[in-house]
Amino acid sequence: MNYKTENIKTINVSKPLKLDCGQTIKDFPLAYETYGKLNELKDNAILVFHALTGDQFVSGINPVTNKEGWWVTAVGPGKAIDTDKYFVICANVIGGCMGSWGPKEIDKKTNEPYGLNFPVITIRDMVKAQEALLNHLGIEKLLCATGGSMGGMQSLEFCTIFPNRTFSAVPIACSTSHSAQNIALNELARQAIMADPVWEKGKYLIKNVQPKNGLAVARMVGHISYLSEKGMQEKFGRKLQEKADYEFSFDADFQVESYLRHQGSAFVERFDANSILYITRAMDYFDLSKHFKGSLTQAFKNQKAKFLVISFSSDWLYTTKENKDIVIALNASGADVSFSEIKTDKGHDSFLVDEPEFLKTLKGFIDSMHIKFKNEKRI
Amino acid sequence: MNYKTENIKTINVSKPLKLDCGQTIKDFPLAYETYGKLNELKDNAILVFHALTGDQFVSGINPVTNKEGWWVTAVGPGKAIDTDKYFVICANVIGGCMGSWGPKEIDKKTNEPYGLNFPVITIRDMVKAQEALLNHLGIEKLLCATGGSMGGMQSLEFCTIFPNRTFSAVPIACSTSHSAQNIALNELARQAIMADPVWEKGKYLIKNVQPKNGLAVARMVGHISYLSEKGMQEKFGRKLQEKADYEFSFDADFQVESYLRHQGSAFVERFDANSILYITRAMDYFDLSKHFKGSLTQAFKNQKAKFLVISFSSDWLYTTKENKDIVIALNASGADVSFSEIKTDKGHDSFLVDEPEFLKTLKGFIDSMHIKFKNEKRI
Repeated sequence: MNYKTENIKTINVSKPLKLDCGQTIKDFPLAYETYGKLNELKDNAILVFHALTGDQFVSGINPVTNKEGWWVTAVGPGKAIDTDKYFVICANVIGGCMGSWGPKEIDKKTNEPYGLNFPVITIRDMVKAQEALLNHLGIEKLLCATGGSMGGMQSLEFCTIFPNRTFSAVPIACSTSHSAQNIALNELARQAIMADPVWEKGKYLIKNVQPKNGLAVARMVGHISYLSEKGMQEKFGRKLQEKADYEFSFDADFQVESYLRHQGSAFVERFDANSILYITRAMDYFDLSKHFKGSLTQAFKNQKAKFLVISFSSDWLYTTKENKDIVIALNASGADVSFSEIKTDKGHDSFLVDEPEFLKTLKGFIDSMHIKFKNEKRI
Repeated sequence: MNYKTENIKTINVSKPLKLDCGQTIKDFPLAYETYGKLNELKDNAILVFHALTGDQFVSGINPVTNKEGWWVTAVGPGKAIDTDKYFVICANVIGGCMGSWGPKEIDKKTNEPYGLNFPVITIRDMVKAQEALLNHLGIEKLLCATGGSMGGMQSLEFCTIFPNRTFSAVPIACSTSHSAQNIALNELARQAIMADPVWEKGKYLIKNVQPKNGLAVARMVGHISYLSEKGMQEKFGRKLQEKADYEFSFDADFQVESYLRHQGSAFVERFDANSILYITRAMDYFDLSKHFKGSLTQAFKNQKAKFLVISFSSDWLYTTKENKDIVIALNASGADVSFSEIKTDKGHDSFLVDEPEFLKTLKGFIDSMHIKFKNEKRI
């Protein structure tokens, strides 16, 4: 990646954090951004968790990449998550590459970027690291914890780790643990990166290079899995890329090839290859029941938060069935949960694009939770 | 690949063949194998077409790899395609690497392997090249033309190019043209190979090396797409690979990772990377209607062959819907067609594994076609 991350908001997390791998860390940076204002009653704070390749720049223009925030469709003034009403917080996950403690940061022991000396982290670790940010911002209890994909996983972990720190949660397009197919797709991405000789067992940053070829292929894996078969067919079909007929070569004849190549090459400008390894590993290790002897019911026991689980009908990465399994577990533990499957051809990407039914559902839930939370606070 | 292909059956195709790219070729090798005996009436010949990474060694032990033939579940003595009754023929496709004319063969002009100087071929070209083999074997009309995946595409092309040369056809788990998602997955495989610096724009064989890393990643793409999400979950789930807990590293913690790594590394021993480029390209270019002004009805016009189209319920690479589109087109052109969707969780791979309902369906159709064909011949 070619971006500078020096001038972004960061806190130093001084409190020791014992990671799932056994290592204890402290005094590490956590980068974040906020949108809107925290009101006096402190009943309007929403913590958004980002997905695999996201960052803390949810809305408006990302000051580092100069592109739109990754959830600008849902978050902003007058949007489903209305920043005129709500105080929206998002932190870059640890393991990431937008200012938080990650494999591209300098290891004080060696004065070189961590690379593979960075510990393997989990979704739990990512979530625990964000507690300090809520304390820093003076927020005892959130109105809502939400996110899509890996962001949804974090919102679920947040509720199990901090059952009293959010009034509601909206996990979107996720699951309670990674399926074999999801692990396989992540492993494919990792192997593509590690197969690139420039990767050099993670030490490429010392030479100030990136395993661009491997990282681009890894990104293509993602983009294929984020679209549905039908959505891809409607968007690209067999349309040719600015040519009248096949060229009988290995150039990008089809629009879908050109799209994937572009997505791959654009991505290497903004993301660190080792971060992809670490974050996909965290996703694969994700199993909400792991710290509860394999019981999801135990994981959600005494859960006070009110849940809305949202899935997308054409999402084959985190299917409706997998999302329903979250609902079943929440029901079994007596939690307050509703569920909505949005009918769409846009696949897993649906939560990131302008999908009116989804945005309406999200807005309705959050606004109604705000009224309830306000009432609870006033009592 | 490390195998010798000198001692396998090959014919020299002397008749000039105009390829779809415009180039005309002649005097090229076509490798093949046969099983069973051609009977006197010559009513028992079945031409099997192989898929992307297949070869002519359908049944028994592959003499080159010393492993079982790729369709040993369906073809052999007493099997669905019973070699005690039928004469089974299979040719290695041009563009392949098991003795037929392909990118690893020596270009007489340069005395070096073709590499990217090999012309981009199509499924039509592959099928046309096999006409000479039928002539060589003295077969005017086949009992059946069949194959799965790319083999199914070839069986469809065979019927449109040679409408009078087969009595029946069984295209299995295929489509009338490659979808955007299929093109995307193939492009991913190609990019993985071309991203490997050892590939050197296709010239690696001159240095007697193979882009093993890229080819292994390409193969992993295939294996993910050949299994269904449910089948993968049942086979692997989140089972760990000979360990009690996560190792917090990038080794293969999960069985599914270990499986994919093994499939990738085993494949590079038996296949040529450039052949993957050429054959996937041919699949992406596949569009049965292309030579019929975009009309599938025209493609199947005057079709005499009797068809059985077979799909698998959990195949997400060539869905039942895509297979039904073949049936719809055949119906619209007045052809004799039946259709069977096999209910299974085994995904696209179903045609290669022991799937009793599929094998029974295949056997029933071929045996009944044999009776009809025999009667027709006797009249």
